[in-house]
Amino acid sequence: MPTPSLDFWFDLASNYSYLSVMRIEALAGRAGVEVRWRPFLLGPILEALGWKGPPFVVQKEKGAYVWQDMRRQCRKYALPWRQPSEFPRRSVLATRIAVLADGEPWLPAWCRTVMTRNYGDDREVDSPEAVTQMLTALGLDAQRLIAEAGSDANRQRLRERTQRARDLGIFGAPTFFVGDEMFWGNDRLEDAIDAARSARQVSFDG
Amino acid sequence: MPTPSLDFWFDLASNYSYLSVMRIEALAGRAGVEVRWRPFLLGPILEALGWKGPPFVVQKEKGAYVWQDMRRQCRKYALPWRQPSEFPRRSVLATRIAVLADGEPWLPAWCRTVMTRNYGDDREVDSPEAVTQMLTALGLDAQRLIAEAGSDANRQRLRERTQRARDLGIFGAPTFFVGDEMFWGNDRLEDAIDAARSARQVSFDG
Repeated sequence: MPTPSLDFWFDLASNYSYLSVMRIEALAGRAGVEVRWRPFLLGPILEALGWKGPPFVVQKEKGAYVWQDMRRQCRKYALPWRQPSEFPRRSVLATRIAVLADGEPWLPAWCRTVMTRNYGDDREVDSPEAVTQMLTALGLDAQRLIAEAGSDANRQRLRERTQRARDLGIFGAPTFFVGDEMFWGNDRLEDAIDAARSARQVSFDG
Repeated sequence: MPTPSLDFWFDLASNYSYLSVMRIEALAGRAGVEVRWRPFLLGPILEALGWKGPPFVVQKEKGAYVWQDMRRQCRKYALPWRQPSEFPRRSVLATRIAVLADGEPWLPAWCRTVMTRNYGDDREVDSPEAVTQMLTALGLDAQRLIAEAGSDANRQRLRERTQRARDLGIFGAPTFFVGDEMFWGNDRLEDAIDAARSARQVSFDG
């Protein structure tokens, strides 16, 4: 009987991804659902879909609302929050590190560190200095990881990951998949976990 | 000590409004929160914001997802669901009736009837025949109400209501207001009700 699982697609620059990055381990752990972390870059996808940035940056009315919503959501989930002075924040190096860390036990902690620095502290997260500081704080070999993250092979890995997101029909972040069923947005995290658990149940019953 | 309350802005053609129209009375009633129903037309607002239709009709990738999401949400909330063969469905006469019914005890039942017919049965809701049938089923004087709904005064009332929505910065439906605090989307209904209840609490403590 396979462990129930879900794929968690997110962008380290995305504010609603922040909420899920911070919440998913506790929720999935409690439900006995395994999470496959799938960092990718949403920017190229939005561009290909014809957006000139995140929908709520393009549309001012929505943009004003989103920060209000984020402040309330972070209060609800007891997460640190400081409205970022720059958005979306460049985080390509941080994402390359995340892609390099595929399957590593420190990947979730890395993502939480990056996102808390961006959305909890309003600090940049993509300079070699910032990345070195964050990796070192996690007890990791920053110099080696930064070098590997920037290798051609790893850059290619991120491009393929993002292309895979496009092929899956992903149009925003976070997005969860249970099998081939898509759930979009942090507001659907609980539903996705429930679906993963039910899928296990079905397989158990059958 | 005033009763805690919230303003409920919705469009009878909007699928996510359907979820809130069906859920709000039970949730608000249990919380002791009074609901002021504010039907309006989202179409002219989206047009003014530069959209050529609901965002997920304009963007195909999102559109395919929304019906999947609706099916699952309706199952979660135990609401009837049949994917509409026409979207968004014309509902101007039905909305004029709703605006005419401002403050009437049958307004919520009217909205539920229209929306269940559209999203539960996939039937048109705006012909005089359909509207007559639905009003009559609620024990109301269809002929008189349809005539009053189409009067210049009432058409003007709907235009003003929609303009008010625009002035409030509304960019989607459903939208809830607790005082001047906006909550957007059916996913925020519970949060809006909690906020209304807390606002009462503050006023009680003070």
